Amino acid sequence: MFYVCVCVCAGLLSQLSSRSSHARVCVSPVLVAQQRNNSTTPKVKVEFDQSTGVAVMHMQSPPVNSLSLDFLTEFCINVEKLEMDKTCRGLIITSSQPKVFSARLDIMEMYGKSPERCGEFWRAVQEMWLKLYSSDMVTIAAINGSSPAGGCLMSLTCDYRIMADNPRYSIGLNETQLGIVAPFWFKDTMVNTVGHRTTELALELGLLYSPSEALKVGLVDLLVPEDEVLTTATKTMTKWLAIPDHARQITKSMMRKPTIDKLTSKREADIQNFVSFITKDSIQKSLRMYLEMLKKRRG
Amino acid sequence: MFYVCVCVCAGLLSQLSSRSSHARVCVSPVLVAQQRNNSTTPKVKVEFDQSTGVAVMHMQSPPVNSLSLDFLTEFCINVEKLEMDKTCRGLIITSSQPKVFSARLDIMEMYGKSPERCGEFWRAVQEMWLKLYSSDMVTIAAINGSSPAGGCLMSLTCDYRIMADNPRYSIGLNETQLGIVAPFWFKDTMVNTVGHRTTELALELGLLYSPSEALKVGLVDLLVPEDEVLTTATKTMTKWLAIPDHARQITKSMMRKPTIDKLTSKREADIQNFVSFITKDSIQKSLRMYLEMLKKRRG
Amino acid sequence: MFYVCVCVCAGLLSQLSSRSSHARVCVSPVLVAQQRNNSTTPKVKVEFDQSTGVAVMHMQSPPVNSLSLDFLTEFCINVEKLEMDKTCRGLIITSSQPKVFSARLDIMEMYGKSPERCGEFWRAVQEMWLKLYSSDMVTIAAINGSSPAGGCLMSLTCDYRIMADNPRYSIGLNETQLGIVAPFWFKDTMVNTVGHRTTELALELGLLYSPSEALKVGLVDLLVPEDEVLTTATKTMTKWLAIPDHARQITKSMMRKPTIDKLTSKREADIQNFVSFITKDSIQKSLRMYLEMLKKRRG
Repeated sequence: MFYVCVCVCAGLLSQLSSRSSHARVCVSPVLVAQQRNNSTTPKVKVEFDQSTGVAVMHMQSPPVNSLSLDFLTEFCINVEKLEMDKTCRGLIITSSQPKVFSARLDIMEMYGKSPERCGEFWRAVQEMWLKLYSSDMVTIAAINGSSPAGGCLMSLTCDYRIMADNPRYSIGLNETQLGIVAPFWFKDTMVNTVGHRTTELALELGLLYSPSEALKVGLVDLLVPEDEVLTTATKTMTKWLAIPDHARQITKSMMRKPTIDKLTSKREADIQNFVSFITKDSIQKSLRMYLEMLKKRRG
Repeated sequence: MFYVCVCVCAGLLSQLSSRSSHARVCVSPVLVAQQRNNSTTPKVKVEFDQSTGVAVMHMQSPPVNSLSLDFLTEFCINVEKLEMDKTCRGLIITSSQPKVFSARLDIMEMYGKSPERCGEFWRAVQEMWLKLYSSDMVTIAAINGSSPAGGCLMSLTCDYRIMADNPRYSIGLNETQLGIVAPFWFKDTMVNTVGHRTTELALELGLLYSPSEALKVGLVDLLVPEDEVLTTATKTMTKWLAIPDHARQITKSMMRKPTIDKLTSKREADIQNFVSFITKDSIQKSLRMYLEMLKKRRG
Repeated sequence: MFYVCVCVCAGLLSQLSSRSSHARVCVSPVLVAQQRNNSTTPKVKVEFDQSTGVAVMHMQSPPVNSLSLDFLTEFCINVEKLEMDKTCRGLIITSSQPKVFSARLDIMEMYGKSPERCGEFWRAVQEMWLKLYSSDMVTIAAINGSSPAGGCLMSLTCDYRIMADNPRYSIGLNETQLGIVAPFWFKDTMVNTVGHRTTELALELGLLYSPSEALKVGLVDLLVPEDEVLTTATKTMTKWLAIPDHARQITKSMMRKPTIDKLTSKREADIQNFVSFITKDSIQKSLRMYLEMLKKRRG
């Protein structure tokens, strides 16, 4: 985690830009408000530097930033607050958990749950995608760990993706490996990023790419050493913020609106479709097997 | 041809996987039935290995596996039989003819024929494309020779394309070189594979790519030495079959359905369009010149 | 400029093909007619070589071939004349101005002008795009200098793009850098050429690419030394003209018609949209700042 790194690892200090030091002073009012309201540790920590107009959102939901209903709700509230704050022009998303950016949708939200609860969960996944993919802010994913499934989707919604060049990390939409299926708007987002054929191969096989493979197919835009991911994201943000906001926003909307409109118009049907699929006996059985496999791996 | 190779070229034996040896025992009932029903040599030979769930379809229509009406009919009947056999999960398509995978549509089906016959032929070409592009099986093209026009189209319908790394071979939709035009669904399939601009260049110029060029633009996925094409296809199939069928099938359908629906809804108009184009005097003249050129080249 | 080069720089003579020498004899009737009709220097000079069926259009509107209303009108009249001349099969577009192919839309047509005049200007930009993108001729851009914004759009409409390999030159749709926005049909043309993601990045950031970067992303097809751009275009044209015209034209139309139809059906709305955007106070202010910046740079 960012703050902790600053305190614990003095050796990292030289790698932090002056902007980062500045951020430590201007602690976000959003963050403070949020910390007061929740007795439990927040799953998301926001640092907003008013001098630069850039917010950094640290995902800190142990162990692997899974996209649970609680996580997504808190995440979306924070994105919406920043979106409505006209002084916030850029958003960097990164992880405070070691080795992982965000690992998949939370399987516990899909296993053994009522159709109503599954539907509520899926609506929250849609909401995260809709908010990020249509954001007026410049959004940069600082991918400082593995990023399968839901984490990959979150990255794909951003304007730019910078990944740690660590061959142990991987990124991709690997749903078919679990016996489930990436829905059409996951697919559309990936096609918009890496094209039709790479998406076909990736989704049919549930491929997870190493950072260098991800760079090659265009799933990420830049690889940097692990300890430079956030500083590079900050530098890159400066370049993006040099472009007049209104021109960039209209352009972004022109590129993404057809894809966004498609989900918006089919949102309820997509929820129905997800619920009826995920509550099938055969799919529940696949998920149970996957969960048992995960348990064994940890144990 | 596969079986013959086993018998004649002992040197090849070491390259054959244990799975192949197994296949020699489990001779396909489909194959046997087919050989009984036809007095003439079948244009397609199917080996189905029930232990792996993988069928290998050898095209054996001398000299160059042209897509004639007879060939297409036999080909489609075999694909349909395998599709309906729920124990068959994967299909590898390859050629028994030396140096060629499949060369083009059979020009004799388009030259000097009645509009009715031309229409019947075109419907069979559509049928092959529809069956393969929408197949629930994993389909792999083991491209062990040149693959122009119709042969390229057949390859493009597969989930994966492995080509012999022999610079004498080529692959591409070269219709314009003959003065004819690849229809919209040939074009759509190619755009889905290599993107819009590469397709525009390829179709306007009727480009034939060498294996290394084809790999570079994404027209094929893998190059291997000529005598390893089929064994590599078999190994690759194992990887694909590790993915749960239903998740892969739903994903494949999601990627391809819009393209398939487009032809299905315009099928009769596409036949009309083909017939009125191909029976034009100017086009018939182009075809005659091409046929004479072919004759001279052989002679 | 081509002719002047022949006269002034004897050293270049050896690089000129025999076709070029021939062109000096067969002076285009279009060109002669045009020179008679205009008392002022024409902004476009056409050389049509009837022996090859290839016209070369030299843009010669100092200082930087900006796309003004006058320039576009003259340009379109010439393209239309060539299009209607069935003996003209190919068109090469190049620049007679040093260091620049064509720099952007003429900002003076957008700054401080009446809505009517802005609308008239925009209709002319649309007309250029429509004429070139749907041309039955083979069109090759011989990009012998920088080619930002409007110049890049013009290049993108061609069938093939050959650029001078001079790292001082750049090409791209950099509208957002000026605080304006590339409209949907600029975007569509770029997506058709380099794909969705590269276009998203390029348009959001207003990227200008060096020749080698442009080649890498597919914005141009070939780089050659600066003094070989036109001769290479001529040689490349010969290859394209070897394809039967009707097959190539039908194929080209199949690839481009959906994009063309989209603008045709939204043409008036696109003009309204442009006029109401460009006449906004905030946009006029952006343009004034840009003009002042240009002045300072020159001064």
